[in-house]
Amino acid sequence: MLKVGTLWVCLITACAAGCGAAAQDTDPLPSWNDSTSKKAIVDFVTKVTQEGGADFVPVSDRIATFDNDGTLWAEQPVYVQVAFAFDRVKALASQHPEWKQQQPFKGVLDGDTKAVAAAGERGLLEIIAATHVGNTTEEFETIVRDWITTARHPTTQRLYTEMVYQPMLELLTYLRAKGFKTFIVSGGGVEFMRPWAERVYGVPREQVVGSRAKVKYEHREGRPVLLRLPEVDLLNDGAGKPVGIHQAIGRRPIAAFGNSDGDFEMLEWTTSGRGARLGLLVHHTDATREWAYDRASHIGALMRALDEAPTRGWTVVDMQRDWKVIYPFQK
Amino acid sequence: MLKVGTLWVCLITACAAGCGAAAQDTDPLPSWNDSTSKKAIVDFVTKVTQEGGADFVPVSDRIATFDNDGTLWAEQPVYVQVAFAFDRVKALASQHPEWKQQQPFKGVLDGDTKAVAAAGERGLLEIIAATHVGNTTEEFETIVRDWITTARHPTTQRLYTEMVYQPMLELLTYLRAKGFKTFIVSGGGVEFMRPWAERVYGVPREQVVGSRAKVKYEHREGRPVLLRLPEVDLLNDGAGKPVGIHQAIGRRPIAAFGNSDGDFEMLEWTTSGRGARLGLLVHHTDATREWAYDRASHIGALMRALDEAPTRGWTVVDMQRDWKVIYPFQK
Repeated sequence: MLKVGTLWVCLITACAAGCGAAAQDTDPLPSWNDSTSKKAIVDFVTKVTQEGGADFVPVSDRIATFDNDGTLWAEQPVYVQVAFAFDRVKALASQHPEWKQQQPFKGVLDGDTKAVAAAGERGLLEIIAATHVGNTTEEFETIVRDWITTARHPTTQRLYTEMVYQPMLELLTYLRAKGFKTFIVSGGGVEFMRPWAERVYGVPREQVVGSRAKVKYEHREGRPVLLRLPEVDLLNDGAGKPVGIHQAIGRRPIAAFGNSDGDFEMLEWTTSGRGARLGLLVHHTDATREWAYDRASHIGALMRALDEAPTRGWTVVDMQRDWKVIYPFQK
Repeated sequence: MLKVGTLWVCLITACAAGCGAAAQDTDPLPSWNDSTSKKAIVDFVTKVTQEGGADFVPVSDRIATFDNDGTLWAEQPVYVQVAFAFDRVKALASQHPEWKQQQPFKGVLDGDTKAVAAAGERGLLEIIAATHVGNTTEEFETIVRDWITTARHPTTQRLYTEMVYQPMLELLTYLRAKGFKTFIVSGGGVEFMRPWAERVYGVPREQVVGSRAKVKYEHREGRPVLLRLPEVDLLNDGAGKPVGIHQAIGRRPIAAFGNSDGDFEMLEWTTSGRGARLGLLVHHTDATREWAYDRASHIGALMRALDEAPTRGWTVVDMQRDWKVIYPFQK
């Protein structure tokens, strides 16, 4: 009779808990090859969800944090948010005639990547500052939403939101089905991710943590708005990630997923807590299906975290070896 | 057969959705007298949860924010966090012999409330700074947890966590049963509330938003810690509340609950969004069962919000008239 009841639970509510017994028969991570990486994930999840087990973690503490660029979606040849900023320069150029003569804006308008690169990180910050502030939060939301639904990747011509990693989508779903709350904890701008994170990753806006500009509450034409100011409020990268996690979540995660040295402190903070922990790095090793880069890359450099992974017990995913497919459209 | 199935859903998962039909027969707000306040709440919730209705709001956007001091628990004769700070002064006095001669610390140690009051807000900030920083976040958590489980209110001799408002506990539960995500958005310190908010209010740590000190990621004896610095990172009060909401939640609430002018902007931001909105103020009118105060109070002053409530369509709860009981121990 219980079986009939359970069936009804599944039919009526489609709930994960009721369907657990049936779901265990199917592989929750079908795009992952059977490897030490996959085993490390499944072993960890099994341990912390085993009621009565030594490593059991109650649902409320099942917090998993994911970096975004290079961990959940592609970050080459430039961060998606940089591509967005460049497109904003083009869109705003008519209001800024001076940009035609002024680097790094001139470089962006002329498609002169060398000139843009020569301006370095400082130039990039100038571009971000000029294109990301002065709007209300609602205006900025609309701009991002319009852009992300149409802009395409320079080499694949795919929508950026198609260039998410299928194995990581499965991992997000798997963890949530096991009672985890999944958060994005990215160096990217929180307001750049929130408009599409729920649709693409199933991560609601309030579970997206990122770098942010200061905002100010004020009135425009009698209506309250939040105005984006040209001042960084939190740089959610490196040692800023545990700070962002503390501010937004207030619990230490038990699992953290990253791909670069910017994720080092997030993995360190996560895995130095008591009890079973999972730290995982996505190593970009697939020059054919994606990109191959680590130590020398100007984007997503991975050096210290890769060197220390073995002694720290962190799992390193070899993208080429461990993933059957990279993107959902390859399924 | 569907009925049998629904029954099984209830028996096995105790889910709100499956039991909805049965639950509608019982009053979800039994400690509220039948009044315009209660009607405003129930009408709003009914409207936004009515599928196909003009005011329907999908579950993901059902965000409700609650002030804490004076809205969820008593704030007289002083904010609970101030009582905590005073107790910390006493606990730390042996490490600070200079405090015996130095106001406002001397006043706290001597129980000289006049001297403490004479030091004003500046003196209070000095006390908070001296007692709330320099610890790691984990040390501070332990201090708060130990204090809140033993400290008692000066006049009722109750634990502070017993002095929460029964009608508001019912409101939190009612909203959650209707698919709302409930957040605390308080001027108080986020790290002072998180250790007990889940146990007392059913609000998980990641849904507590408050004022916060800057924290710094560093290493102590080889282990990473987050150190609390003597610098305010966010003052989550007044116009700071919509900022805190934006940072932590990233959605505009559809319902907001407060009791003082420090909640004005939160209610304004909430109720100026499109569609059905609920703004509600708890008016402290019960000198017998709780306290009666508004315009002239040095704590939780309520003036502008009270004056503008009628034109803004905000509901004002008359505590004396609308609430059958104040605290859970009066049930």
